[in-house]
Amino acid sequence: MARAWSLKSRPDGMPLTGDFEMIDLPDTPLAEGEVRIANHWLSVDPYMRGRMNDVKSYAPPFQLGEAMQGGAVGEVIESRAPGVAVGDMVQHMFGWRDEAVAPAAFVQKLPALGVPPQAFLGQLGMPGMTAYFGLLTVAEAKAGETVFVSAAAGAVGSTLIQIAKAKGMTVIGSAGGSSKCSWCQSLGADVMIDYKKDGSLVKKLHDAAPQGIDVYFDNVGGEHLDAALAAANLHARFAICGMIDVYNSGRATELRYLPRVIGARIRIQGFLVSDYLAQAGDFYREMGALLQAGKLQSEETVFEGLDAMPEAFLGLFSGGNTGKMLVKI
Amino acid sequence: MARAWSLKSRPDGMPLTGDFEMIDLPDTPLAEGEVRIANHWLSVDPYMRGRMNDVKSYAPPFQLGEAMQGGAVGEVIESRAPGVAVGDMVQHMFGWRDEAVAPAAFVQKLPALGVPPQAFLGQLGMPGMTAYFGLLTVAEAKAGETVFVSAAAGAVGSTLIQIAKAKGMTVIGSAGGSSKCSWCQSLGADVMIDYKKDGSLVKKLHDAAPQGIDVYFDNVGGEHLDAALAAANLHARFAICGMIDVYNSGRATELRYLPRVIGARIRIQGFLVSDYLAQAGDFYREMGALLQAGKLQSEETVFEGLDAMPEAFLGLFSGGNTGKMLVKI
Repeated sequence: MARAWSLKSRPDGMPLTGDFEMIDLPDTPLAEGEVRIANHWLSVDPYMRGRMNDVKSYAPPFQLGEAMQGGAVGEVIESRAPGVAVGDMVQHMFGWRDEAVAPAAFVQKLPALGVPPQAFLGQLGMPGMTAYFGLLTVAEAKAGETVFVSAAAGAVGSTLIQIAKAKGMTVIGSAGGSSKCSWCQSLGADVMIDYKKDGSLVKKLHDAAPQGIDVYFDNVGGEHLDAALAAANLHARFAICGMIDVYNSGRATELRYLPRVIGARIRIQGFLVSDYLAQAGDFYREMGALLQAGKLQSEETVFEGLDAMPEAFLGLFSGGNTGKMLVKI
Repeated sequence: MARAWSLKSRPDGMPLTGDFEMIDLPDTPLAEGEVRIANHWLSVDPYMRGRMNDVKSYAPPFQLGEAMQGGAVGEVIESRAPGVAVGDMVQHMFGWRDEAVAPAAFVQKLPALGVPPQAFLGQLGMPGMTAYFGLLTVAEAKAGETVFVSAAAGAVGSTLIQIAKAKGMTVIGSAGGSSKCSWCQSLGADVMIDYKKDGSLVKKLHDAAPQGIDVYFDNVGGEHLDAALAAANLHARFAICGMIDVYNSGRATELRYLPRVIGARIRIQGFLVSDYLAQAGDFYREMGALLQAGKLQSEETVFEGLDAMPEAFLGLFSGGNTGKMLVKI
C-alpha cells in the first residue's frame, strides 16, 4: 500500500518531527488520462515551510491530514494516458509519498540530457532555474560584475556560482563551515565567507568585496541582506529568492543599512521561479551546453527511505545539506 | 556684509540649534563669468540631514565652518556673465545665505510659468520633480492603480497626490494630524491615514486600502514601509525617496513583512531626483498644463529671515510643515 507524509499539526516556529504523520493512501484504480508513478527521488526545499502555515501565500497551505506535495522524480508503472508509457521517467509535484497517481498533464518526461534523473530536482530543475533566472533575468547580472550569493553551498547557490563564473562574473559566496566554503571555491567562487565564524558579516563582506557588489542573490535574508545593502555599489540589483532566516522564527528583519537604497539607487526585486517556466527552453539549452563542456558540478545530500523525509526537511534549516537535499526511495 | 549658516559641529541624532553658526562671508568682487544674487527664498529639505554627517554619500558632507548649501531663489544684483542680467530671477544651490556669488553655469533662470518664484523650490522644483519622476518613472504607476504615499502633506507628497489624481489613480495618504489630513483630501486624496492616532499602521492601511496597494511612494521608511509591504498587491512597485524616520536616529528599520517581497514579487527601487534632470522638460510641460487647468494647489510653511533657517530645518523632523517649508528673506 502506498504511503505519504501528511501534516498532523501546523508548526509554531521550527517544525518538530511530531508535526508530521505517515498516512496510507487509498488503493485507487487509474482514471482515464492518469498515470501511476513509483517515486525514486523526493525533494525537500525551504519554500515548503511557508506551505505549513495556514496563510494565503503564493502556494496554498498544506491541508492537515492530507498527503503533502513537492518535487519528485519517478518511473511510470501504469498508464491510462496516451503519450506516457510504462517505464518513462518523469518529474512532477506529487512528492512526500512513495507512489503517486496523477493526471498526465501534471507530469513532465525528463529531458534527455544524459544526467542522473535526480538532477531534475536540483541543478536541472527548480533550484537550477531559480539560480539561472534570478541571476540573469531578475538581477540582470553581467560579465565583469561582482555577485554576492548567500547559502552558496545549497542547491540554488552552488548552481549560481557556476553559471556566474561561466558568464565572466566575480562571485563572493557565504556558507556555514569550512568544508562548504572549500567546495564552493572548487566550483569557482572567488572568495568565500564563512558566516559561522566570529565577526560581523558587514565587515566580512567588505573585506571579501572591497570594491563593493553589483548583484546580491538572497536566499537567507536578515543579516546577510543588511550586509549586502552596506556593500552595494551604485545601481546594484538584489534578486530576493528566499529568506530562510525568518521562515521559522517569523521575526522582524532588522536592516541598519536600508537607507543606502536611496543613495545607491538599489533595486530589490522578489521573484518566484514559476514566473519563468515559459522560458525553461533557454535554461535547458544553456545548462545542457555547460554540462557538455564539463562546467557543471553538483553535490547531493541524500537521505534514504520515505521515513526520512521530515528529518531531511528539517536539515535544510540547520545547514545539514551541501548541494541539493534529496530523499531516495 | 553677506552672511551664511555654517555647521559648527556634526549632529549626533537630532540636530540642535547649537550645531549651527552664522558666519560672515568675505566681500569678494565678481570674477569673469560669475553673478551675485540677492536670495529671496531659501529651501530646507530632509535630505540635508545626510550632508551633516561626515560619511560618503550621494552628496558630499557639509564642511565644518564653511557656508552650507541648498536650494535658493533670488534676484541677480550684479553680473559678469553674458546672458544673465541684473534683475533676472534665478534658482541655484547656494542657499543657507542671504547673498550668493556663483558661476553663471550653476544658476538657472526661472521658467516663465506665471507662478510665484518660490514655487521653483517646491511644487515646480526639486520636490515636485521628485514626486513626478518617482511616481511615473520609478514606480511606473498607471491609471486605475492604488498609490500609497507617506508624508503626504509635505512638499513632495502633496504634489504627488495631485499628479496621481490627474492621472486617474486612487490615492491613499498618510500624514500626522487632522488638519494635514483634511488638506490632503482637499487636494484629492481618496483616503487619508492619521498616523499619529492610536492603532497599528498595518491595520490602518489595510482598512484604507482593503484591495491592497499597487504603488508605495516612501518618504518615511520604518513602520510605514512595513505597512506598505503588508498591503502590497502582486507586482507592486515601491519608489524609495526618503526615510525621514531614521535620518536622525540612525536606528535599524524593523520589517516584519519583508518576506512578502518574494510571494508578491515586489520591486523596491531607491532613487534620486538628480538622475532625472535631463527629462525636466517633460516635467515642466505636464506641470504647466496642470497649472493652467487649475489642477495644482500648494501650501507653504514660511519662516521669516535668515536667522530662522535652523528652526525651519528642524521643523521638518517634527512635522512642522504643511506643504513646502521655506525661509523668506
